[in-house]
Amino acid sequence: MDSDQLASRVADAMLSAEGTGPAWGILIEEARAGYCRLSMELRDDMLNGHHIAHGGMVFALADTAFAYVCNGRNQRSVAAQASIIFLGSAEAGETLVAEGQETAMTGRSGVTRVSVKTSGGRAIAEFTGYSRAIGGAVVEI
Amino acid sequence: MDSDQLASRVADAMLSAEGTGPAWGILIEEARAGYCRLSMELRDDMLNGHHIAHGGMVFALADTAFAYVCNGRNQRSVAAQASIIFLGSAEAGETLVAEGQETAMTGRSGVTRVSVKTSGGRAIAEFTGYSRAIGGAVVEI
Amino acid sequence: MDSDQLASRVADAMLSAEGTGPAWGILIEEARAGYCRLSMELRDDMLNGHHIAHGGMVFALADTAFAYVCNGRNQRSVAAQASIIFLGSAEAGETLVAEGQETAMTGRSGVTRVSVKTSGGRAIAEFTGYSRAIGGAVVEI
Amino acid sequence: MDSDQLASRVADAMLSAEGTGPAWGILIEEARAGYCRLSMELRDDMLNGHHIAHGGMVFALADTAFAYVCNGRNQRSVAAQASIIFLGSAEAGETLVAEGQETAMTGRSGVTRVSVKTSGGRAIAEFTGYSRAIGGAVVEI
Repeated sequence: MDSDQLASRVADAMLSAEGTGPAWGILIEEARAGYCRLSMELRDDMLNGHHIAHGGMVFALADTAFAYVCNGRNQRSVAAQASIIFLGSAEAGETLVAEGQETAMTGRSGVTRVSVKTSGGRAIAEFTGYSRAIGGAVVEI
Repeated sequence: MDSDQLASRVADAMLSAEGTGPAWGILIEEARAGYCRLSMELRDDMLNGHHIAHGGMVFALADTAFAYVCNGRNQRSVAAQASIIFLGSAEAGETLVAEGQETAMTGRSGVTRVSVKTSGGRAIAEFTGYSRAIGGAVVEI
Repeated sequence: MDSDQLASRVADAMLSAEGTGPAWGILIEEARAGYCRLSMELRDDMLNGHHIAHGGMVFALADTAFAYVCNGRNQRSVAAQASIIFLGSAEAGETLVAEGQETAMTGRSGVTRVSVKTSGGRAIAEFTGYSRAIGGAVVEI
Repeated sequence: MDSDQLASRVADAMLSAEGTGPAWGILIEEARAGYCRLSMELRDDMLNGHHIAHGGMVFALADTAFAYVCNGRNQRSVAAQASIIFLGSAEAGETLVAEGQETAMTGRSGVTRVSVKTSGGRAIAEFTGYSRAIGGAVVEI
């Protein structure tokens, strides 16, 4: 199993173990070492009072991509901090795509950048996650 | 109607108009000018693969408090950016309480700090939201 | 020596040991447990091309207050991450005042909020710092 | 003049107009559309009490790269918010290199990612800047 296969297996295992993935309809489009792309279709129960995607749901999708990326070496890691910049709005029925890329890894600290766009390519948000490895593995290999 | 009553009415209107509030079981404990306190009970479908609250749900609760605070003058406002620091974990059945306070307002820009704790007072996260007023009102008065 | 005196002594020791404090003209107005207030007068060499305070100098002042606060228990701590929201501009000759307050401390992780204003009270920036204790003391007691 | 030449001219003009660039010894290694790489040698007056680069100076360098990138279309822009994750330390005599890349631009809002490393490639910090165009030009063309 190479590093890309390991990262993909970790992402699959995380998705199947979490309550949120199925609740949010998260789909893994691609997962490999240092990279992950997820999609999620916006439903009415994900909208705020202006009938656009709630910032919490945009963050939740990006944060999920971040989690799969930063755990991809099968070294259990948690989010220490995250920031998000909101750039555009999206409506029910639109599909959001989050593309995460690890940009730094030093000791136990990692940084993952995630871009969230609609499937048509409209910019929705830019997210930066800061992770810490806490010891242990995600999946048995 | 004074500024506290207005802020409370805005929060109620926002909660009843949004899809996420009912979906997440958001309760408004208190809402007044520049301040809001919300609670949310953690369910299985809000947990990540480690069976603790997903960071996305912790953020979503804080972001909801931020939205009610920054719209509390009945000047329609949106989140431009937000940051969150994760300090502890919480499990299904626990109730999270988010307490938001506006700390600055200059022109159209506002800053709201939100602390998220369990109902027992354990620190879960500290959130900072940056809002922009975009014109228009939230409720008719 | 009580906790307020200890925090004050740590701040004094840090200022006298650092190259930046004298270079930037940092003054400690007050330092006590969990709290610090600093001032800095803006000089021409702290301005950007628009002849207003460079964001880097505003951050540097806030970050200095953050460092004094998060080390105030005499447990050596470092900045892991920080965020800043810029709210207003300031000119040469104006004095910036940074007021830092610890808002959470859990295990080795701390959160400090810093407001930067002019001495006249105009809002310049809101800063949030995330610190980690790394072991060891700042001053011998 | 193409977009790369324009971005380079803007960066040169900003550096020569600001007080901080000369004070900090900022050198422009490369500036083109959406991209900028700067260097700065660490001096004793840029160190904190632990004799490593003060976080404020690391931020200041990254923020300078951010400013040159987000103004590179010759549309005057200001920093609205910025976040930094600290990954490593650097000492006096080392040269820091900040590499900034615009990753999103929507309406008047832009996002620039900046990596700060030593000239030897050791990771020091990851920075994310959020800018707003405020109207007007930086240089006359």
